[in-house]
Amino acid sequence: MWTANILTLFPDLYPGPLGSSILGEARKNGKWDLNITDLKLFSEKNKRVDDSPFGGGPGMVIKPDVIDRALLSLKSKDFPIYYLSPRGVKLDAQISNYISKLDGMTLVCGKYEGVDERVIKHYNMIEISIGDYILSGGDLAAMVLIDSVVRCLPNVLGNPLTLNDETFTNHLLEYPLYTQPREWKNYKVPDVLLSGDHKKIKNWKIKQSEDITMKRRPDLWKKYLKLK
Amino acid sequence: MWTANILTLFPDLYPGPLGSSILGEARKNGKWDLNITDLKLFSEKNKRVDDSPFGGGPGMVIKPDVIDRALLSLKSKDFPIYYLSPRGVKLDAQISNYISKLDGMTLVCGKYEGVDERVIKHYNMIEISIGDYILSGGDLAAMVLIDSVVRCLPNVLGNPLTLNDETFTNHLLEYPLYTQPREWKNYKVPDVLLSGDHKKIKNWKIKQSEDITMKRRPDLWKKYLKLK
Repeated sequence: MWTANILTLFPDLYPGPLGSSILGEARKNGKWDLNITDLKLFSEKNKRVDDSPFGGGPGMVIKPDVIDRALLSLKSKDFPIYYLSPRGVKLDAQISNYISKLDGMTLVCGKYEGVDERVIKHYNMIEISIGDYILSGGDLAAMVLIDSVVRCLPNVLGNPLTLNDETFTNHLLEYPLYTQPREWKNYKVPDVLLSGDHKKIKNWKIKQSEDITMKRRPDLWKKYLKLK
Repeated sequence: MWTANILTLFPDLYPGPLGSSILGEARKNGKWDLNITDLKLFSEKNKRVDDSPFGGGPGMVIKPDVIDRALLSLKSKDFPIYYLSPRGVKLDAQISNYISKLDGMTLVCGKYEGVDERVIKHYNMIEISIGDYILSGGDLAAMVLIDSVVRCLPNVLGNPLTLNDETFTNHLLEYPLYTQPREWKNYKVPDVLLSGDHKKIKNWKIKQSEDITMKRRPDLWKKYLKLK
């Protein structure tokens, strides 16, 4: 079963958002698992898990030996180790899909300022960033990564069509969605969507997706044109 | 006090990760607040909050009138309304910093497939994406946005220097961090960090940041060179 190992200073945050809705149900049904390791249990006796950075600077740095001992305690040691960090490779839907095909992953969540560089090197950790902004720790980033991966696992989404139809699979953003009521305030649902003409509807959706992608994300638009 | 209104189908997830550590403490100390609105309370009597999309397709779409009624129930109606969506403008540290200077924000969290396009238009919502990947709902994205904003608020971080020193402020990724012990396995802390020579240390940090940015993020590197 696909498993995410998490090394964290905040074990109580889990499963949290990962325990609700589709992800929570999928976990109950044995489609994936979460294995939480509390870093605080792996400090040297009576010592702290973190200390000031050498050379000065704000914040605290998690000690290399703490991470090392926590990693050695894991049952499944052969998963790739990802360290959530704004310096990392930027997560995208292709990376999530790739990870969903592995047996699992081990995530190291920093907090305070970060973790000692030596343990990143020693374990050849891959640094992953969920975006160009700073968070107060790695746990929310870990949850985002897990969410984006788990929904790519087989039989997790009720309707596997969702995966093919959605944003980023073909570099297009999603077309606008409309549901009941047919008329709301002065806004009507576009006629074509009520026409029952499947070919017309499909073409409308593609056209809308193309327009919105061209306007909002010229970078994706270029990738789409190359594939087209 | 800076406030985040959240419209969600999963009110129980909050504060969750936003209630721990620096963010949780700052909230206890009255630096910011969270106001959760349960969308399920705003459906028409005996009706659902969502329905199938017109024109077919997988998933369910949240009805426009449900979001409308929930928005009208808010005390602070003058905040900008952000809808978390992969079609949105991509969040970065500059946007987070900008939002931290407003009085607050209202976040609409989708789930299932999304929300009806008409309510997005009617309220002139700004769509924000936390990255080019798909999540099973908007709540984790909302938490990420809130985390990245709250830590920019005055007096939230213990050491305000952290904000100036960190990744993205000047388009540079962060230099490597080292802490105790001085020697771990066969790895030593770089001599310069132990030298006590502040000027040398500063230059080393800048050089490391430049090198790592150039190698890993040529896009940021170009922005940095323009400012330099």
